[in-house]
Parts: sequence; structure tokens; C-alpha cells
Amino acid sequence: MSEYSTLSVTQEGGVAVIELNRPDKANALNMAMWEEIGLAFRRADQESTVRVVVLRGAGKHFCSGIDLMDFASVMTGKEKCDGRRREELRRLILKLQGCLSAIEECRKPVLAALHGGCIGGGVDMVASCDMRYISAEGYLQIKEIDIGMTADVGTLQRLPHIIGDGVMRELAYTGRKVDAEEARAIGLVNRVYESPEALMAGVMETAQVIAGKSPLAIRGTKEMIKYTRDHSVADSLNYVATWNAAMLISEDIQEAMMAQMQKREPKFRD
Amino acid sequence: MSEYSTLSVTQEGGVAVIELNRPDKANALNMAMWEEIGLAFRRADQESTVRVVVLRGAGKHFCSGIDLMDFASVMTGKEKCDGRRREELRRLILKLQGCLSAIEECRKPVLAALHGGCIGGGVDMVASCDMRYISAEGYLQIKEIDIGMTADVGTLQRLPHIIGDGVMRELAYTGRKVDAEEARAIGLVNRVYESPEALMAGVMETAQVIAGKSPLAIRGTKEMIKYTRDHSVADSLNYVATWNAAMLISEDIQEAMMAQMQKREPKFRD
Amino acid sequence: MSEYSTLSVTQEGGVAVIELNRPDKANALNMAMWEEIGLAFRRADQESTVRVVVLRGAGKHFCSGIDLMDFASVMTGKEKCDGRRREELRRLILKLQGCLSAIEECRKPVLAALHGGCIGGGVDMVASCDMRYISAEGYLQIKEIDIGMTADVGTLQRLPHIIGDGVMRELAYTGRKVDAEEARAIGLVNRVYESPEALMAGVMETAQVIAGKSPLAIRGTKEMIKYTRDHSVADSLNYVATWNAAMLISEDIQEAMMAQMQKREPKFRD
Amino acid sequence: MSEYSTLSVTQEGGVAVIELNRPDKANALNMAMWEEIGLAFRRADQESTVRVVVLRGAGKHFCSGIDLMDFASVMTGKEKCDGRRREELRRLILKLQGCLSAIEECRKPVLAALHGGCIGGGVDMVASCDMRYISAEGYLQIKEIDIGMTADVGTLQRLPHIIGDGVMRELAYTGRKVDAEEARAIGLVNRVYESPEALMAGVMETAQVIAGKSPLAIRGTKEMIKYTRDHSVADSLNYVATWNAAMLISEDIQEAMMAQMQKREPKFRD
Amino acid sequence: MSEYSTLSVTQEGGVAVIELNRPDKANALNMAMWEEIGLAFRRADQESTVRVVVLRGAGKHFCSGIDLMDFASVMTGKEKCDGRRREELRRLILKLQGCLSAIEECRKPVLAALHGGCIGGGVDMVASCDMRYISAEGYLQIKEIDIGMTADVGTLQRLPHIIGDGVMRELAYTGRKVDAEEARAIGLVNRVYESPEALMAGVMETAQVIAGKSPLAIRGTKEMIKYTRDHSVADSLNYVATWNAAMLISEDIQEAMMAQMQKREPKFRD
Amino acid sequence: MSEYSTLSVTQEGGVAVIELNRPDKANALNMAMWEEIGLAFRRADQESTVRVVVLRGAGKHFCSGIDLMDFASVMTGKEKCDGRRREELRRLILKLQGCLSAIEECRKPVLAALHGGCIGGGVDMVASCDMRYISAEGYLQIKEIDIGMTADVGTLQRLPHIIGDGVMRELAYTGRKVDAEEARAIGLVNRVYESPEALMAGVMETAQVIAGKSPLAIRGTKEMIKYTRDHSVADSLNYVATWNAAMLISEDIQEAMMAQMQKREPKFRD
Repeated sequence: MSEYSTLSVTQEGGVAVIELNRPDKANALNMAMWEEIGLAFRRADQESTVRVVVLRGAGKHFCSGIDLMDFASVMTGKEKCDGRRREELRRLILKLQGCLSAIEECRKPVLAALHGGCIGGGVDMVASCDMRYISAEGYLQIKEIDIGMTADVGTLQRLPHIIGDGVMRELAYTGRKVDAEEARAIGLVNRVYESPEALMAGVMETAQVIAGKSPLAIRGTKEMIKYTRDHSVADSLNYVATWNAAMLISEDIQEAMMAQMQKREPKFRD
Repeated sequence: MSEYSTLSVTQEGGVAVIELNRPDKANALNMAMWEEIGLAFRRADQESTVRVVVLRGAGKHFCSGIDLMDFASVMTGKEKCDGRRREELRRLILKLQGCLSAIEECRKPVLAALHGGCIGGGVDMVASCDMRYISAEGYLQIKEIDIGMTADVGTLQRLPHIIGDGVMRELAYTGRKVDAEEARAIGLVNRVYESPEALMAGVMETAQVIAGKSPLAIRGTKEMIKYTRDHSVADSLNYVATWNAAMLISEDIQEAMMAQMQKREPKFRD
Repeated sequence: MSEYSTLSVTQEGGVAVIELNRPDKANALNMAMWEEIGLAFRRADQESTVRVVVLRGAGKHFCSGIDLMDFASVMTGKEKCDGRRREELRRLILKLQGCLSAIEECRKPVLAALHGGCIGGGVDMVASCDMRYISAEGYLQIKEIDIGMTADVGTLQRLPHIIGDGVMRELAYTGRKVDAEEARAIGLVNRVYESPEALMAGVMETAQVIAGKSPLAIRGTKEMIKYTRDHSVADSLNYVATWNAAMLISEDIQEAMMAQMQKREPKFRD
Repeated sequence: MSEYSTLSVTQEGGVAVIELNRPDKANALNMAMWEEIGLAFRRADQESTVRVVVLRGAGKHFCSGIDLMDFASVMTGKEKCDGRRREELRRLILKLQGCLSAIEECRKPVLAALHGGCIGGGVDMVASCDMRYISAEGYLQIKEIDIGMTADVGTLQRLPHIIGDGVMRELAYTGRKVDAEEARAIGLVNRVYESPEALMAGVMETAQVIAGKSPLAIRGTKEMIKYTRDHSVADSLNYVATWNAAMLISEDIQEAMMAQMQKREPKFRD
Repeated sequence: MSEYSTLSVTQEGGVAVIELNRPDKANALNMAMWEEIGLAFRRADQESTVRVVVLRGAGKHFCSGIDLMDFASVMTGKEKCDGRRREELRRLILKLQGCLSAIEECRKPVLAALHGGCIGGGVDMVASCDMRYISAEGYLQIKEIDIGMTADVGTLQRLPHIIGDGVMRELAYTGRKVDAEEARAIGLVNRVYESPEALMAGVMETAQVIAGKSPLAIRGTKEMIKYTRDHSVADSLNYVATWNAAMLISEDIQEAMMAQMQKREPKFRD
Repeated sequence: MSEYSTLSVTQEGGVAVIELNRPDKANALNMAMWEEIGLAFRRADQESTVRVVVLRGAGKHFCSGIDLMDFASVMTGKEKCDGRRREELRRLILKLQGCLSAIEECRKPVLAALHGGCIGGGVDMVASCDMRYISAEGYLQIKEIDIGMTADVGTLQRLPHIIGDGVMRELAYTGRKVDAEEARAIGLVNRVYESPEALMAGVMETAQVIAGKSPLAIRGTKEMIKYTRDHSVADSLNYVATWNAAMLISEDIQEAMMAQMQKREPKFRD
């Protein structure tokens, strides 16, 4: 895509494919890529023909994490007042978090397809996705500990909801690799495919299945799962009742019922 | 039971067995069944001889989900004002949620014994139970997505606490079947039995074990696990300390200690 | 250690080993042990040369739970007013909780090495640790239900974050044993070692790996995982951004980057 | 009303008047009155012709608080097990709370008209109302402290949202009287009327004004103010957006706009 | 300002003055004004020379509320599917809320200077400001109830933190006018000035006082007050400790201490 | 008292009087005073003969705030690593907060008697008290803004629960003085006495009244008001029900009832 310098974005039917595209840098996250990820997912949210997003990486690795050269230059500001410098740093971190939160705030499901390494900032990124799939040679690594930093763009906040607390801590403290099979066993990915090709084929197939469902119901479902993570069950039940008071009566539920009676596949408008 | 039109309720020792009993409709949830479930679990909560509840389905399937004919007729109200109609719809959903929440609010443990299909509203129902067991041929399916609706009576709110976030989303977005073995692997059920008969025998055995424990301690334990799901650890620790200030000193703890010294089984009053 | 009557505390490099040391009582928790655990972990938190803590038990078992004789004498106060007696009981429970919470509040990772039985109060204790490892013959048991009490010092509050909700309830209601392999499968422990010796060697190795990381980054990581358990993702992201505004710029991140460029192992100050 | 033994319920236009009616006992709260209050407000919630409720007391006082004779007999249960007895007591308190919470859960605004004394449980009751008005000779008193109990049916939970924290504590610790003028100054009541007659006339006038507004908008407004008290501003904004997605488009908003253009008073359907 | 069609923005020293500038429409909120308010406050947040913002209205009134003609045209979308239409409506409300939340998210204090009427959406707007001041002839009115709607852009969410619960409800249910003196008595405004001219002079004076304080400390103070409104005291204390770990050591605290020793006024950099 | 260097502690009947006692420094808070405040209130909490605490200042002023000389020396640590230095600073702030939180955690009511100035840290201190009283010449001042810092030991966290949001912000941003009469009008103090002598007499009288009430009921009342500030009404109602299940049945309620029947003053045991 001419409009992005670090991403390549394509669309197949209702499925947008957002590809990290700095293969010579193993898709390391530089400032341009952070910003373009935020932008691309906000667009995917707005564009009504997009019903599902697949996130993958070009080249040998999904993502090698933050680009340290780039990061060092960003962190070295000119501000001499210690307090103001820290306020700037805090706002920079909030900004980077916001780029990844755009994945979570995108109303359409996001499927991450991992091959090769998914390291450091790459793990923060996929923790924002709805589901993760991996090819057999792939691995993940919460690498921040090895550059002497407390991970601050999502891994420590979102991963504990995906994998168990005990394993979470071991991975975060040791920074060790998690191979594909272990990733599946602990729930970090949903499935292991035998090769990157099989991975992409499999993920696209699942994505197309989801793209065939009612977009309104899919968006509501994503909203509810996200809401429930951060609220009590009682609050979540009240919220979905109010939500469906607004959204339940729709073309889609009629079409679904009609299709069921006519024993055909339903077709939903974007 | 003569008093219910859609359920059959029996009791063996301290174990009440509540059976969905519309086998010719694959135990589809019609309005009568919703209400009777609420009623039956509120009674089980009140009736002191009941210490544990087993929930199962008559016929070939545990539950085929909401009865669409019934649902359609309920949803078609006479109200012409759009706002009032939506308010009615919201209150209807809250009412249905309340019927299933009665399972959770019942102070006694509820064990769901699943065979055949457990579909749509059936999954919402078993997500309100304490534990789930299944027979080898059984399966579960978050089916709401296929009728174009965002599930709104408990699955999306309670299941993320039982299974991992990544698998949760795949099941909710695709509506695919989860067979018995996968259900066990992801923590959706605790154990797979080889047949419906073995399932019922096994579940009743576990239920009787629990029925033999101190009812006061069991009720406190259920309350604490439920409370902790929706509160911080600090709040939960304070709550249990206050709870036990009231409930710890009891006949049951004396009987348990006495039995231990006398090397016999304790016997607890209802 | 001469200073403790129920514990033995040693240190290897940056790793403190806190050993429950009442082997003739199977390390049952009496009042002295409760208090010394609180004390030892507060010291480990303060002592800057300690970077990681390993918790283990001397003798045949890790811990057989609360010392019932001791507990009975504590519970029998002289207070005759029923209200004041309950207030005292509540404060006693809060005090015992505080002893175990010292493990969680210790800023350094705590690895529990379990062999033999880990029973009742022992499970509450290890639920406060960061990670748990076990030897093949070991087992855990939420035993409180068998003395007619609702567990009140941490198991019911912390374990649901570590294992799935469905299994959690079965274990708490039935009080049944969980052997090493099941414990690993449900995420209660991270790994099974073939023998107590292999366990201690393996745990010490992991502990030394963590002790080699940046202490500042490790402490931040523990704080974030703990914080996120009890707060929303949005609040947690804001907190880590503010935290790193203060803590990110440090000797450690410079040393880590330098070491990476010089292709050597980094060395971090305590 | 023949159907209540302790209340008298009448209706003027859209305004239901619920009157505490044990004037010879200064409207002391006995068990029958607790239950009938719950019942009467649940009916007011259901009955669509009721748009506003006024709560007042017959005789010389609004309410003299809990009926101690009645309370003593309720508290003296037959249960001999200390734990079970406490569980029963807890459930009794929850039940009494539920009777007053029915006032808060009633979707229609409730205006309390206070004259004479409003004491103890009477304060808990009016703390559940939307607004409070008083006549010049009236007074309130958080009297529970004088019978040696921690108030447990709403005053300590709801009043701090109505009056400032500092005054709240003084009133709760000392149990002193608050006269009409002080009550107004601290926000405990909205207005002081010179006599009980002026009070009733004034309150009915305000009630009729509210009864003339859109019932749908009034119900939404009450829901939002209640929700916001217990949730963050961000959550509350999201909730009202979802609520109005369902409820905004209505006959009422059309009628209101039409009336405005036609320069006439709007008339809303129940 | 040429860049805004509905606002006029000027700056005096460190004080930006944002003026609603549709005097012929009594500053009614049309879509352009909603968006420009969001834009203007985001700019004020970014622009480091701005330390305080004053918000006022041109002409006879501060703000007459939402522009009904404009609103009607926005609400009448082309979408025919009822569910999609409601989703659009929800997103529109969220967008309007976001425009006013920009006032709250602006890190610099915002002082509202009210004269004439402040009605409907105008009240939502000033509820997002830090402080409110009024001239003697001014008044406020929660007018939404009179167009048959539940107010949904901030009044019901933020005002209960500013005025007492009881008065809040009366104003929201009746939609009656609150004159300047009553507004002061209930805490809705901080002070009453005798005329619009005195109001502007007084507000500018207070604004200049604040603009002379340390910008870093002012921003931290605003953040803390906002945070504490939505979090527990314990969480808020922890947050400010972490915040000040980053921001306390600064040029400003040194300058303040130096000035104090030298008995001169401190001068702080933007 | 010989045991404190900065406080003087005496007791009259059930009322402990804790006096800030550095009159020559206008009771400025140095490190010793911070620590002794924590200590003195923890002792008051433990000592059963103490039922109420009065906090006052010796000399001309209640408290002139933090001792800047002392603070400067504390803040200048030897730590050279920027990250470790900030971690130390955060822990220092948490420690100071803890000293004042001891006032809030003391189970007995604390009445602050203010005369002369109550400035900066003094305001944080009295915000932790239950009630505040002042003499006519006294004043308060949130002075932190003038030394270029965001107040971090309680004022910004606790005061918004005591006074309205709008006035709160003005006081925190401008640092202006609040005289006795304004303090009363905004709810910051409960009452103004004409002189320091009248103040002490009046506060001691109120303290003695409270000291005559049931200590158990008073402690429960303080716990509930504190709890409700940080939790939802629903959670708070559940908590008090559980609390009273433990604490309601007591000598005190019997004595209170007996005294009422015998028409005499009740006498409660410590």
C-alpha cells in the first residue's frame, strides 16, 4: 500500500490483512510502525466492508520487538527539567499504548497469525488481538526484562487474562522462549499449524467463517467480552441487556431466522 | 413432579436432581422453562435438606437452546412507541438473566451433567453452574451468533472466568462445536465420562461427597469464590474475615474436630 | 538461623531460601510460624542483596496446614461478650492473612518448591507465591472443608486467578488430593520434577536466572502483574505509564543496552 | 387500602401517595411494615399509571424507627448452632435492606414528606428516596447508636452521598437531632415548609410537575443518577450512550418537540 | 479567530479565553460547535504557553443548549436497519460526549464564566469544567427533561460530584431554573459577581493567579482530583505516590524553594 | 509524655488528646512527628480504654505544614541511579501517607480541633480525621501548590469527599486561605467556636458524648462510613449485613435495651 511505509494492507472479501512490512528489520517496531498500526486499525474499525482483520508479519519473523535504535533516539529528549522530561516520557508511553489499544478498540475481531519470532513489543501487540494462531516453528518471548525494563505497552496488563497467573510470571521474569506447542498448551495461542503456509491458510479460513456472520452480532460479542474482562458479572449482565435493547431487533436477526426456516445460508449486509 | 410443566425434580439424600424435561423438544428453553428454572433453584436454596444440586436433561440432549418459536412470540409486543418497546425488551432480558442467576445465587453447589448437545441458551445455563461434567459423545456450542444475536443471558459474562480469553472468543465468534475432549482440555468441563450412564453415576458420586461436608462451610466457600470473581483480592480477604467472624464458630467445626480426634466420619446437620 | 524458631533462612548469591522448619510436625502452621513467615518476607523485601526468594519445607512434607491444637487454643479467648469476641476473631484472621500477604507484598519474586503434601494452610501460602513447582510424588489439598470451615487466609481469593473456575470449585468443595501431574495440567504448578532433589536443583536454577536480571525491572514487573489482577486494563496501562515515567531511566537499562552492544552478559547492581 | 395493614396507599393523577399508617405507634417499623413497604414500591414500579410516589406518615410523626419489641422477637430465633444462627441473622438483615432498596429500585421518583420525628430506621428509609422535604417543626435523628448497634439498613451507605462526610459522622456517632433548618443547610432535605399542611401541598405540587414530564425520560434520568453514584464517570457515560441508543427515539421526544413548535404543553402517555 | 466558525479564541498571558460565538443563536450547540469545542480544548492542552483556560459566551447568554434543528437533522439518518441505526446513534452520542470530555482531559484548569442562561447542553459543558462562576442575573437549567430525553452528555454523570444528591435529582426531574444565588448555595458555582463585567474581571483575576503557579504542579493537581473522583482513596494514594516519584523533582520545586528563601515571587517556565 | 519528642498525649476518661507539640516551629511536620503520629494513633487504636481521640496543636497554630528544611534533607538521598532514587522517593511518600492513614485506620473517632493556621500537610492530616472543628480566628490553606508540588499525602484524595468538587479545585489551584466561616459553609469544618478555649471545651464535650456510646457500635459505624466511601452501595449493604451477623449480638445492645426499659443511661464496657 502506498499510504503506509511500514505496513502492507490488503483485503479479501470481508477480511482485511494487515501485514507488518519491515522484513529486513525483522519487523522491528519503529515510531512510524507504531503510528501506522494505530491508524490502520482505526480505519479497519471505520470501514464497513471490513468484518474481520488478520494481522501477520512479512519475512522470517512476525515481529522482533521494539527498534532499540529508534527508541533510544525518542527517549533522549531535549527537555532539561527532570519533572517535565518525565511527564513527556509518560505521555510517550501512553501514546504507544494507544497505538496497540486501537487493535482492541477496533470493533471487528482481529486474528494474529504468528510465525518465526514474536518478541517483546510483538507480544504486547498480539495480546491486544482477539485470537492468536502459530506455525510449528514459531515462538514467543516476553523480552523486555532483558533490556532492563518493566514492559509497559500491554503484555503485563492483558496476558494474565489469557494464560494462567503462574506461567505468566515465569515468562515475564525469565524472558525465556515459549515454543508453539507450549504456547498452545497454556492457551497463549488457539492452534498450531505445521507451517507458515498452513497457518495463513487456516487463519484465513477461520477469518472468512467469522466474516460470514452477522456483523452487528459480532461487534456486540466483541464489546461484551472486552467489557466483562474489566467489570463485575452483575454490571456486565446489565450492560448487555441495555445493549440488546438497542441492537437486537435488526435486519440480521430477521435474515438469520428466515434463512434457518428456508434451510439456506444467511447473507448479512456489511 | 406435578408442580412443574418443564422440569422434573427429585431428591436422593442431600442431592436434589433438577432435570430439564421437554425431551421431545430437545429441552428447548421456552418461557415456562425459564421461569421454572428460576423457581426450582430458589426453592433448592431455601430447602435446608438440599445440600447439593445436580442439573441434567431428559432425553437425547441436555438442552438445544432457546425455543425460537416461543422467543419470537415474546419479542413481538403490542407496544407501538419505540422507546417503550425497547424498555420492555430490556426488562425481558433482565428477567431471563435473573432465572439463570438463580443458579448462581443458590447457596448450594450446582453440578451440571451434560450429554448430547448443550447449545446456545444451554451454555448460558451451565456457565451459571459451579462445575460441569460431560459424557464422551456430548458437545457444547455458543450458537447465538448463528441467529444474528449477541448472547445476552450469561455466556459472554461468565465463561471468560472458566476458559481462557483466546479460546472464548473463537467459540463465540464462530459458533463451532466443542466436543467433550476439547471441553475438558480448555477447562470448560471438569471430566469426561465414557457414557451418559457413567456420567450420571460419577456426578452423583461427587455430589454425594459434597453433600457429606459441612453445609455451613460449603455455603461459605461458594459465596467466597463468587465474591472473589468480582472483587479485588484485598476486598475479598476482608470479606471472608468478616464472614468467618460470624460463621466460623459453629456446631460443624466442633463436630469435625471431634470426629477427627475420634477417627470417625463427621456427621453434619442440615 | 538462630533468630527464627520455625524457619531456617539461608542465602545463595541473590537467592534467599526460606525453609519451613518444623519437620517433626510436618511443618504445621502454629502461631510462631505464621508470625515468622510475615517477618521473614518483610525482611527479604527490605534486604537489597535478596533478589529472589525460594520457599520450601524441611522433612517429608512441604506443609501439613494449620496446627489444630495451636489454633484451638488461640480461638478460645476469654472474652465473654459475643460481639467483642467476634471482633477479636475477625482481627485474628486479618492478622494471619497479613502474614501470608507479606509474601505477595515482598517486591521480589517468590518461588515455592513443593514436595510431599501441601495441605490446607499450605495451599493458602503457596497461592501467595509467584510461581509453584512440585516433585512427582507431591500433592496439594484444599483441606479446610474437612474441618468444617470456609478457608479464610487466601486460597479462595487467589487461586481462582491461577486455575480455572470449574476445577477450583471442585477442589474446594471436595477437599480431594491433586497430584503433581494434575496440578501441572490445571496450571496450579508450572512444572513437575522427578524427585525432591531434582525439584530443588531446578527451582534454584530458575531462581538464579531471575536473580541475574535487573532488580528494578523485576520489581516493576511483579508490581504490574499484581496490580492488573485487581484493576481494569485501562487503569493498569495508566499505572505502568506513570510508573515507568519514574523508573524507566536507570542504570539498569543503560547497562542492558551497553551489554547488548558489547555482546556480553549485563551485570546489575542490587 | 384494605390490602395493607400498616400502609395506606392512594393515587392522585400520576402521583401515588404511600402513607405509613400506624399512627398510634408513631409509625414504628414492625415486620409487617417492612414487608409492605417492599411490596408497595414494587407495585408502584409495575403500575404504569403511577409516575411519581410521595411517601409520608400518618399522625404526629413520620416514623419513630424500628419497633423494638417486634425486633427483639425476630432476633430471638430457635437455632442453637451459633454459625447457623448468624447466617439467619445475616439473611434477615439482607431481607430488611431489600424492603428499603425497593424504594430505590422503583423506576419512578420518590419524594419523602417529613413532619414530626424521622428517627432511626426512618432515616434509612428516606435515604432511599430521591428527594426529602420537611416541615418546620420536623427533625431527623440517626438513632441506632443509642441502642448499641451499627445502623445496617441504608443510612450509613446512602447518606454520605447526600450530605458531607464530616457532618455525616457527627450525626452517626452522636445520634443527636437535626432540626429542619440544619437539615436544609446540609442538604439532607431540599426545602423547609412552614407547616405539615404546607409541606404536603408543596410536595404534591412538585410531584405533579414531575408527573407531567415524559415518563420514559424520567425513568432514564433516575437510572443514570443511581448508576453514576456507584460507577466511574467513564463507565457512566458509556452506559447512558447505550441506554439512549435504545430509548431516545420515542413517542415522547416527538411529542415534546411538536409541543414546543406548537407552543403548547406536551402530553405524555403513561 | 479565523480558524473556528463558532468559537472565538484569544490569549492573555498564560490564560486562553475560549468564547462560544454564535450570539444570534444564544450560542446554541450545533454540530460545528461540538467539534470545535473538542478541537479547541485539545489544542489548549497541547499548547504549552496556555496554563489556564476561561470558557465564556458571547452575547446575552452563555449557552442555550443543543440546537434542536441541527440535532433533528443529525438524528434522522438514512440507515434502515433498526440495529445499525441504533449503533450509529450510540456512536454519535459517544462522539458528542468526547467533545465535552476534552475539557476534562485538558491538563490545564478550566474556569467557566456564566452569564444569562446556561441551559441543557450548556450545563453538561460547564459540568466538565474545573470551576464555575456566575453573574447575578445568570441562571442554569437542566432542560433535557423538557424535550423528553434523558440527558446523555455529562450532566447526570458529573454534577452529582459537585452538588448534593437530593438537589441534583430535583433539578434533573423538574428542569426548573436555578438562579445565581441558589447555584452558589448548593455549590454549583463558586461565587456570584454582581454583573457580567465584574464576572469576567473576577474570573480573569483568579485565572491569572493560577497561571502564576507551577504548571507541572497544577497539572498534577488536576490529574489527582479527577482520578480520585473515580477511584478508591487507597488506589488514589498509591497513584499520587507513583506520580510524584516521577514528577516531584523538578525545576519548579527548586524555583519555589529558592523564591521562598529569597522572599520573592517564584517564576515558573511554561 | 516522655515517650514522644513531638507530641504530647493525655487522656481524660475515654478521650485521648493527642497534641502536636513543636509550638516554636508552629508544629511543622518533621520526620519525627510524621512517625510519632503514626505510632500514637496505632496505640490509640489498640488501647481499649481509649474510645475517642481529639487532635489539636500546642501554641499559636494547629500546624504550619511540612518542615521544609527537614524535607529537603530527606529528599536528597545518596542514590545515584535515577530509577532507584525514584523508587526510594515513592516508598518515602507511601511511608508518610501511612503515618496519616493511621488516623483513618484507628477504629475510634478522631476529632480535630483547629485554631490559628492549618496549612499544607496540616490539611492532609485533618482530612484523615472524622470531624473538624475550628475557632473563629482559624484558617486552612492547601499550600502545597506554592512550593511547586502536587499534594501527595491525602488532601487531594480525601477532601473531595468532604467538600464540593468545584470549591475543592479552587482551593487546591490557588492555595488561598479559607477562613473559619467559609470552612463551615463549605462543610470543611462542622462548627465554628468563638475562641480557642471555647473550641477545646466544645470539642471535648462532643468527644465525651461519643465516648459514652457503645464502643462496639461506634467502631462498626466508623468502619461502615469508611467502607462506603470506596465501594458501591450494594457492596456496602452486603458488608454491613455480614458485619452485623458477627457483631450485633453483644453485651452492648442488651445493656442499651435494658437501660431504655429502666429509663436510665446505659453504661458500656470498654
